[in-house]
Amino acid sequence: MLIGVIGGGEAEGDALTLAHEVGREIASRGHVLVCGGRGGVMREACRGAKEAGGLTVGILPGDDLADANEFLDIPVLTGIGFARNSIVARTANALIAIDGSYGTLSEIAFGLTAGRHIVGLLTWEMRDGAGREPPIERVQSAVEAVDACERAAPGA
Amino acid sequence: MLIGVIGGGEAEGDALTLAHEVGREIASRGHVLVCGGRGGVMREACRGAKEAGGLTVGILPGDDLADANEFLDIPVLTGIGFARNSIVARTANALIAIDGSYGTLSEIAFGLTAGRHIVGLLTWEMRDGAGREPPIERVQSAVEAVDACERAAPGA
Amino acid sequence: MLIGVIGGGEAEGDALTLAHEVGREIASRGHVLVCGGRGGVMREACRGAKEAGGLTVGILPGDDLADANEFLDIPVLTGIGFARNSIVARTANALIAIDGSYGTLSEIAFGLTAGRHIVGLLTWEMRDGAGREPPIERVQSAVEAVDACERAAPGA
Amino acid sequence: MLIGVIGGGEAEGDALTLAHEVGREIASRGHVLVCGGRGGVMREACRGAKEAGGLTVGILPGDDLADANEFLDIPVLTGIGFARNSIVARTANALIAIDGSYGTLSEIAFGLTAGRHIVGLLTWEMRDGAGREPPIERVQSAVEAVDACERAAPGA
Repeated sequence: MLIGVIGGGEAEGDALTLAHEVGREIASRGHVLVCGGRGGVMREACRGAKEAGGLTVGILPGDDLADANEFLDIPVLTGIGFARNSIVARTANALIAIDGSYGTLSEIAFGLTAGRHIVGLLTWEMRDGAGREPPIERVQSAVEAVDACERAAPGA
Repeated sequence: MLIGVIGGGEAEGDALTLAHEVGREIASRGHVLVCGGRGGVMREACRGAKEAGGLTVGILPGDDLADANEFLDIPVLTGIGFARNSIVARTANALIAIDGSYGTLSEIAFGLTAGRHIVGLLTWEMRDGAGREPPIERVQSAVEAVDACERAAPGA
Repeated sequence: MLIGVIGGGEAEGDALTLAHEVGREIASRGHVLVCGGRGGVMREACRGAKEAGGLTVGILPGDDLADANEFLDIPVLTGIGFARNSIVARTANALIAIDGSYGTLSEIAFGLTAGRHIVGLLTWEMRDGAGREPPIERVQSAVEAVDACERAAPGA
Repeated sequence: MLIGVIGGGEAEGDALTLAHEVGREIASRGHVLVCGGRGGVMREACRGAKEAGGLTVGILPGDDLADANEFLDIPVLTGIGFARNSIVARTANALIAIDGSYGTLSEIAFGLTAGRHIVGLLTWEMRDGAGREPPIERVQSAVEAVDACERAAPGA
């Protein structure tokens, strides 16, 4: 299956460690990693996936390979800026959100719109105007995160 | 200035009443209303703006005018689906969020990414992984909402 | 109706003169001008439209008003780069192509895809692999161009 | 390198045979095939690439895998409609155009805008308003087409 990893391009510390572990776990189970193709969480997840012999796809905002991290097999140069966040969210069969800022928040929102299962690690929490929380599954580890994706989209 | 109104296409009750008042207030002060062009909050805001003699712009997801509400002066047919949410957020000088579901959440996220001031009425609340809340200004009425937009983007 | 003007951002000479006349003609007949919002043909058409008291909409590729020409009433900041060409083509009820380079060629192609009537002034000519020419109506003047748009989309 | 194959979703006859051969040739030389992910030329090229053990990426317009051809390894669900044509053109290091209608014409235009080398087989011919032809390299066979891509983007 195609598993999306979304998270901060400027992340630090635990978020990066988790991203690296998530990338390894995705690839070691034979899944393809999809992400926004840049730094921080995206880069660490790709690095992990390549260490485990996996395939990585980066949906980049710009039209310049210089913005891509060095662990991408398939750099998709969208040229559509942050609107590419909707493509990351939709292309993945399930999404793992790690930390992240406003861009990650938009990807969570698009994933919810597209009906993708979203797994959260140290990431955004939110309630709508009526106090309802979206169905984000909160987990604590890389293994749990990939387990959750596999349960959510078993046929993918 | 161009004031964006974002909110639920399926909204009910108080949200619709507020949207209508916000639309009237925007137009009566001479501002242009920008929105996603469809129903619910978007339609009520446009209806209010037209009652007050204003100009309305709808950034539609599809390529069919049949999806537009009947109070749009300028229907922009993007054909790019939900990715159009990033255009609504960016085109406005400031944004008023009323109620709303995941699409509105993505517009709030894009507005924050683009540095637009966001005013909230009965809408999403959120915290990132470190517990920080984004700078959304919470208000209680249409007048306060448009006041807040004018203060935030005075030269627009 | 919404009439699109597409053409070179780097155009010179006759193309600019025609663009200016086309913009005046569109506005003097009460139509709204839609274009890509930048320089060259787009700027001259907007200048003409404003001289005639019209309304101008610019669908800009970037997210910076500094790229907009100074004759836009409604600058739509798409942030999606050249992919915005598909929005210009689709938003217009009919299109007038004046001169232009590869961007204009893409707008002609998108207009044809969307079934919009296209009127050509000093612009691209093309044949597909089977030697067939697309239905572009060739005219010689601004008046003929706007006449052709009105005939093609009478109810818009 | 990433080689893009663009062409008609409704193509017939020689165009389909050439597309199949081009797909095989791309994959047998170890390149990745990028296309719009749908039928006709795109499907035949992907089928050829898979027969030769290659990797295929499809940049789809919609958000439904049902629109994808059955020979895609990486279906990218853009959800941005025909605007995705700009992503196909930009993501490829070089492009091979086979037959095709208006969508293909837009991809040629975007490829030219992005500075990609374009190789043509039975496809569009065009001249701008000054009578100049864009730099499309015309060839007669699948082998020549892939040779031309390799010469044009040697380091990719």
